[in-house]
Amino acid sequence: MAEKTCVFCSIVAGEIPCVKVYEDASVLAFLDVAPVSEGHTLVIPKRHFETLDQCPADVLSEIMVCAGKLARAVVAAADADGYNALCNNGKAAGQVVGHVHLHVIPRCAGDGIFARWPAGKYGLGRAEDIAAKIREKL
Amino acid sequence: MAEKTCVFCSIVAGEIPCVKVYEDASVLAFLDVAPVSEGHTLVIPKRHFETLDQCPADVLSEIMVCAGKLARAVVAAADADGYNALCNNGKAAGQVVGHVHLHVIPRCAGDGIFARWPAGKYGLGRAEDIAAKIREKL
Repeated sequence: MAEKTCVFCSIVAGEIPCVKVYEDASVLAFLDVAPVSEGHTLVIPKRHFETLDQCPADVLSEIMVCAGKLARAVVAAADADGYNALCNNGKAAGQVVGHVHLHVIPRCAGDGIFARWPAGKYGLGRAEDIAAKIREKL
Repeated sequence: MAEKTCVFCSIVAGEIPCVKVYEDASVLAFLDVAPVSEGHTLVIPKRHFETLDQCPADVLSEIMVCAGKLARAVVAAADADGYNALCNNGKAAGQVVGHVHLHVIPRCAGDGIFARWPAGKYGLGRAEDIAAKIREKL
């Protein structure tokens, strides 16, 4: 169902323009208007879901099959060396538009994008504790 | 096929230990040993593929269905407000292990992780040019 106040639903409906890269019956891919790198593309399902975990299996599959094909084309077109496939879910995670979207971001060696990766370490027994908690919630 | 020199294939084979969160016939999920946040989990296909675009549709579907369910559990267990689902493809994109893996990273409001999002802008006509190039390569 389209959400009346959703910018991406309006793009799907053709009410707001986009620079389209790919479209089929279930997904749409278009350039991010505020690209992290040239060729930075968003893949969205046409149906409105807010986050990845709310998407049914068929929608997840459609998004990812599109993203896989698209990634090769984006990397080739941008003459890149790799890409990030990133889905931010929830405002706390950096999601700005509340319609699930997968960023496909072409990357070149040494481009410095997302250079900060603040990896930590678990204290003794802490990893086992949190894993047990996750398994309980599954 | 398992790759002899692949750390994640060795984890799948049980030759290298991991803190397991979930396992079925086709996917494995375990805690990242160098977590960006507590509960940071990796989802991998048991079969060896290097990048997302090399995975067949059924494998993509299996990874993402697992990731969706897992994301809810990780967010609940970590008492988080959201999550990033991130797949780095290629060394230039930050991929360290050459066996495709999806990071599920729980996020809390204001945690400052991945705070840098270096968004740019396209010059006149540039977006249309790059989009045309991508469509050509699809």
